[in-house]
Amino acid sequence: MFESANLEHRVDKAAYKREALKLRQALLDTQYDLKEDGRFPVLVVIAGVEGAGKSETVNQLNEWMDPRHILTSAFAEPSDEERERPSQYRFWRAMPPKGKIGIFFGAWHTDPVLQRVLGDMGDGEFQREIGEIQRLEKMLADEGVLLLKYWFHLSRRQQRKRLEELEADPKTRWRVSDLDWKYFKLYKKFIKVCDPFLRKTSTAQAPWVVVPGANPRYRTLTVCRHLLAAVRERLAEKTPKRTADRIPPLPAPVDRLNVLRALKLDQPTTKDEYKKELEKWQGRLAVAARDRRFGKVSVIALFEGNDAAGKGGALRRVTSALDARRYTNIPIAAPTEEERARPYLWRFWRHVPRRGRFAFFDRSWYGRVLVERVERFADEADWMRAYSEINDFEQALTRHGVVLVKFWLAISKDEQFRRFKRREQVAFKRFKITEEDWRNRKKWDAYEGAVCDMVDRTSTAIAPWTLVEANNKYHARLKVLKTLCRALEDALESTPKKKVKR
Amino acid sequence: MFESANLEHRVDKAAYKREALKLRQALLDTQYDLKEDGRFPVLVVIAGVEGAGKSETVNQLNEWMDPRHILTSAFAEPSDEERERPSQYRFWRAMPPKGKIGIFFGAWHTDPVLQRVLGDMGDGEFQREIGEIQRLEKMLADEGVLLLKYWFHLSRRQQRKRLEELEADPKTRWRVSDLDWKYFKLYKKFIKVCDPFLRKTSTAQAPWVVVPGANPRYRTLTVCRHLLAAVRERLAEKTPKRTADRIPPLPAPVDRLNVLRALKLDQPTTKDEYKKELEKWQGRLAVAARDRRFGKVSVIALFEGNDAAGKGGALRRVTSALDARRYTNIPIAAPTEEERARPYLWRFWRHVPRRGRFAFFDRSWYGRVLVERVERFADEADWMRAYSEINDFEQALTRHGVVLVKFWLAISKDEQFRRFKRREQVAFKRFKITEEDWRNRKKWDAYEGAVCDMVDRTSTAIAPWTLVEANNKYHARLKVLKTLCRALEDALESTPKKKVKR
Repeated sequence: MFESANLEHRVDKAAYKREALKLRQALLDTQYDLKEDGRFPVLVVIAGVEGAGKSETVNQLNEWMDPRHILTSAFAEPSDEERERPSQYRFWRAMPPKGKIGIFFGAWHTDPVLQRVLGDMGDGEFQREIGEIQRLEKMLADEGVLLLKYWFHLSRRQQRKRLEELEADPKTRWRVSDLDWKYFKLYKKFIKVCDPFLRKTSTAQAPWVVVPGANPRYRTLTVCRHLLAAVRERLAEKTPKRTADRIPPLPAPVDRLNVLRALKLDQPTTKDEYKKELEKWQGRLAVAARDRRFGKVSVIALFEGNDAAGKGGALRRVTSALDARRYTNIPIAAPTEEERARPYLWRFWRHVPRRGRFAFFDRSWYGRVLVERVERFADEADWMRAYSEINDFEQALTRHGVVLVKFWLAISKDEQFRRFKRREQVAFKRFKITEEDWRNRKKWDAYEGAVCDMVDRTSTAIAPWTLVEANNKYHARLKVLKTLCRALEDALESTPKKKVKR
Repeated sequence: MFESANLEHRVDKAAYKREALKLRQALLDTQYDLKEDGRFPVLVVIAGVEGAGKSETVNQLNEWMDPRHILTSAFAEPSDEERERPSQYRFWRAMPPKGKIGIFFGAWHTDPVLQRVLGDMGDGEFQREIGEIQRLEKMLADEGVLLLKYWFHLSRRQQRKRLEELEADPKTRWRVSDLDWKYFKLYKKFIKVCDPFLRKTSTAQAPWVVVPGANPRYRTLTVCRHLLAAVRERLAEKTPKRTADRIPPLPAPVDRLNVLRALKLDQPTTKDEYKKELEKWQGRLAVAARDRRFGKVSVIALFEGNDAAGKGGALRRVTSALDARRYTNIPIAAPTEEERARPYLWRFWRHVPRRGRFAFFDRSWYGRVLVERVERFADEADWMRAYSEINDFEQALTRHGVVLVKFWLAISKDEQFRRFKRREQVAFKRFKITEEDWRNRKKWDAYEGAVCDMVDRTSTAIAPWTLVEANNKYHARLKVLKTLCRALEDALESTPKKKVKR
């Protein structure tokens, strides 16, 4: 969930100044339009880790817009009045009316998440709370509330740095308490609770927007631009839509940095290194696949990537280490007639392997949020809900003990051009290049954005993406092989040697 | 959830024969229309208690329609093939294509519910399963599957009778196993698990239809009529609707028996009895309200009922026993402007009382599924989702320790006529009767249907409805007073005397 947010995003000061002025004016105008329109309220939920700029953002929103039409509520300790009522009471009390913006600094999630992190809430209770939150937010969306949820994130390193900086400055020292450091020590546990929580409460109608919190200019632009776009989009609705069609926009990138651009695509692996390593790791994989404990797990590996990134080549280096009776290759192209006649995931469920088998997907269910999104084969409402559907699907797999490995093979635009040209020139490679490849290439930026959203929304603790730098084929093939091999070895490691009864 | 289903519904043999023939033909025709149309699949889920006619119904559907276009899957023990995959695999494998009907005899809920009843599944795991089922069913609905879920119910008495009957007949003795009797012993536990399960998995797009299972003719007509209506309604869609608008119809009543008609509205309480009892119970209530433990709970009582059923009179007999500083009367009429500007439940949340207080709602949030439904002030999609929203709201109240008592005061149509006439004749009562009352009276049957659906869908283990026979005012007032007093006494009973720290 936090792949993009963990990057060191920055916005240049001059560029920020230019934009901030315009953005501020646009926000204020939109706020008055909202009031004039009066058809719906906006509810902004501010959440996330300490020190990630939550209060600064709330202050800024109040400064940039007309605070008379913003209802800001900070939900710290409940008052006596509130404690005597059910926990939702305080949020209902602060509910903004149509035409206004409500900012909830902390909301219904705060208490359960914190209690779960501190170990004061059991799993059953926490699961029940998640269910209640889902239903509450669905109801608000159904009632026409524009619900915008921002999750402010810092990497562990960033949070430590931030706390140290605040402490070093006499003017801000008071803001850091022992409690902050206590919470910092719980960082990993916090993320472990939040990852599935965000995953399950991110729906198509009320998705979480993860805001990288380290750089103030970056986070301001992220929130303000998104808020502006979301309110404007809803104001532009002429005839009121039904909830299922009301999908707030995903945030547009603020800087040029993203999970793909952060990769060093050219890696130095030489042919000699490759040969040696390839033999070693193919050997290890072959051994792992013959381990008797493999009879208790199964492996699904999926390969996505730019056209000509070398998916097929990498896959062949994996399968050549394996017994052909043990694996199936599943190339995903256009769905067949019988596949189109059933819900989307059916075509993938039918290929889920038995125990002791590998299934390799050459392209996968991620087509829904890649090609179907970019080429507009699927409606926004449909690909937006696919993120959580895919997360549910993958959770079902991993909870059953399937080893799930997801590869994105990334090459640069230049490298792709070279490979396309070479494919056209070499006779036996010509079948691999079509007009469609050239057409897709023209949409490079759109695909890049879709990939980054995909990684952010589906790289979860239970099923992380492995991004593979693939300009150098040797490196790419080895990384794929090693990652897969290690994932299988880890799974075998945690499988008891003795026969398990179910 | 099972109020209607616990009644002894019957269908006369001759009437059944006449209808069955037509129904059968209509089902067959509709099945071919579905195949011809080919836009969506129908998935029928058959669930519920043992011995309630599930398998008979599955057989009958296959007999009445063309079995070549029905895919029936019974999910008993999973096969080896299936056991080696995640639990959803077997359901995906059996997923019907567009244009066909799939019947799932048992489905994704079977295993979790059974395991929970037998104590083999913890609360956390069960809550997680409920969440997964909600998301799976939402996804299927979003993908265009017409999902029809039938829950076959028997009261405990009916189930015992059924098992005994099967055992008594040599031809059917084989059908009753020791396991059946073992499960019968768990009946109460089963219902305790199923009540919240049904509540949470009943959504507007995929509501459970509870089928009274004791009378074969009744249950056949219930399922077949509903299936027919639901498929026809969807076939009639000219332009495809989005999911939020796709609400399968609620089942229409099959016989004249319902929870209201089952009441003996004329009760024999005399004025003398009334006076004596009134004094006694008002005294008890006054004592309970002065108990120091009352400082730790609060009471919400809501009064709904036919026009002129005596809600106000009953309420006054309650409040006259109480200290005026301890209670608030909240008459619910048309919403104010500031209430209309916020999500529906806001107007009720604002009146949730502090501890040690009573809040009396004269009409309530149930307006959504009564007047707003009947008068078409709310769309079907909106009042259908209100059932589960209201259940969530009431769960939030009761989990906080609010004592929630819900009264429906029922009078007969004749009695209402007499009271209306009297109100017109007696000067000081004239303000109580308006043109609107006479208009509402014309929709008596529509309101009656709405009340029965309301009771079935919102009378839950945590917040049951109390139906009050109110032709005799003395009886009605005493029943209200007693029920409220006992509910409060029970709550105080389970509150520790010592001061509790929160």
